[in-house]
Amino acid sequence: MRFTTERRLDDGILEREFTLGDIPGILWTSGSASTPAPLILIGHQGGLQTMYPRLAGRARHSVAEGFAAATIELPWSGDRPRSADADQARADLRRVLAAGEPVSEDIIDRLVLPLVEAAVPEWQAAIDALLALPGIGGPVGYSGGVSSLGIRLAAVDPRISAALLFAGSYVPRAIFEEAGQVTIPLLMLLQWDDENNDRQMALDLYDALGCTEKTLHANLGGHTGVPAFEGEDAVRFFARHLR
Amino acid sequence: MRFTTERRLDDGILEREFTLGDIPGILWTSGSASTPAPLILIGHQGGLQTMYPRLAGRARHSVAEGFAAATIELPWSGDRPRSADADQARADLRRVLAAGEPVSEDIIDRLVLPLVEAAVPEWQAAIDALLALPGIGGPVGYSGGVSSLGIRLAAVDPRISAALLFAGSYVPRAIFEEAGQVTIPLLMLLQWDDENNDRQMALDLYDALGCTEKTLHANLGGHTGVPAFEGEDAVRFFARHLR
Repeated sequence: MRFTTERRLDDGILEREFTLGDIPGILWTSGSASTPAPLILIGHQGGLQTMYPRLAGRARHSVAEGFAAATIELPWSGDRPRSADADQARADLRRVLAAGEPVSEDIIDRLVLPLVEAAVPEWQAAIDALLALPGIGGPVGYSGGVSSLGIRLAAVDPRISAALLFAGSYVPRAIFEEAGQVTIPLLMLLQWDDENNDRQMALDLYDALGCTEKTLHANLGGHTGVPAFEGEDAVRFFARHLR
Repeated sequence: MRFTTERRLDDGILEREFTLGDIPGILWTSGSASTPAPLILIGHQGGLQTMYPRLAGRARHSVAEGFAAATIELPWSGDRPRSADADQARADLRRVLAAGEPVSEDIIDRLVLPLVEAAVPEWQAAIDALLALPGIGGPVGYSGGVSSLGIRLAAVDPRISAALLFAGSYVPRAIFEEAGQVTIPLLMLLQWDDENNDRQMALDLYDALGCTEKTLHANLGGHTGVPAFEGEDAVRFFARHLR
C-alpha cells in the first residue's frame, strides 16, 4: 500500500489516496485519533471518480463519529483495465432493460459473479493493509452497494463484524444461497420505488440472510433518493456493533 | 379532564392518571418544561393496566427527549364497560385462529371498525383536553398499535403531524382505502416473524399509505420482540417532525 496524495478537508478530516498494487483507493481518518478507530469499508458500484462526492459524504459522516473509512476501485471500473466479458454483460443488461425484457439469470450471473470473484480478494487485501496502519483497528464494517460483494465478503471473512447493504436486485442465485451463511448484524436499505430494483427480490434477500439481528429500512423514492437521516442511522448502527 | 393521581417516577418524570368523562388515561410530563412540549399519543391494543410497563417505558423515553406523552383506555377494554359485539368478534377471532382457519374480512370488520368508530372521537377529545393544559403544545404525534386507529385519526384530524404505526394485519378494507388519505410523515414498524401478523398485508399497507415521507423498519422476531434501538429511532423520528 502506497499513499499518493494527502489533504485535509475543510472539516479537518485527513483524506489520503493510495494504491494497493495497481488498485486505487481512498482512506479517510480523523488524523488525530488517540485510540485505534474501527474501520468502515465504503462499498459502491464502481467508478471512484464519478462516485467521489457521494462516497466522501458517507465517509466524512463516519469519520466524524469516530471511525476510519476506506474504499477501493472495483475490478474493470474507473481507470482500471477493462474486461471484455464484463463489458459484454453490461451491454446485454442495457439492451434487455431498454427492450423492457426480463433480466435473465444468465445475464445476472455474468454481470455479478466474476466481479465478486475478482473483488473479494482485493477487498480482503485492503483490509490486511488498512488494519496494519497506525490508528486503525478492528472490527470492520462493510457499508454500501454491490450487495453481492458485501454478502460474499461477510460470508468468507470473519473480520467483517457488521454490514449495511443497499438492496440490489441483480443478485445471482449462488449469492442468494450464500446469504444464509451471513450471521453478523445487518442493516439493509431499500428504496421502495427503485427503478433499478425488483422490490420483491430485495425482500426475499432480506428474508434469506442468516443474521440473527437484521433490520430493513425502506423509504419512498428512487435509487439515489436515500433520505439524509439514513446516513445518521447507518453511523448509529455501526456504533452499536463496531465499538 | 380530571386528574386522579400524581406521582414522580424515579427519573423525575411526572406521571398523572386522569379521567376524561368516564375514560381513564395517563399523562407523562417532565414537570419542569419551560416551553410547551409537543405531545405524543401512545397507542396500544387496550388494557391500560396490563400494558402499563411497556407504555410507561415508551412514555418515559419520549419525555426524556422533551415531549409530553399521554394515552387513554380503548373502548370496551380494561375497566370500561364491555361490548357484547366486541366480545363476540374476539371470540370468533380466537376460534378461527385456534382452528388454523383464515381470518375472514367479516371478523376483521366486526373486530376493528366499531372500535375505530368509537375510539377516534375519544382520542380527539383527549387531544382537546391535553392541548389546553399548561406546558403542552402542538404539534401532536400518534405512536403505536391499533394501526387502524392511527390511520383514521391521522386521516381526519389535522393536528396529528407525524405517526409511528406498529404494523397490524387486521386492517379492514375500509381503513385500507383511507390509508391513501394519510399524507403526514410516517414510520411503520414491522416484526418480520410476527405470529399475529400477515407480513404481506403489512407491506401492502405500507405501500397504500399516501405519505410523501414514509419509512418502514422491519426487524426479525415476534410481536413483542421490537428491539430497544427502535425506541430511540422512534424518538428521533418524532423529534424531526414535531419540533
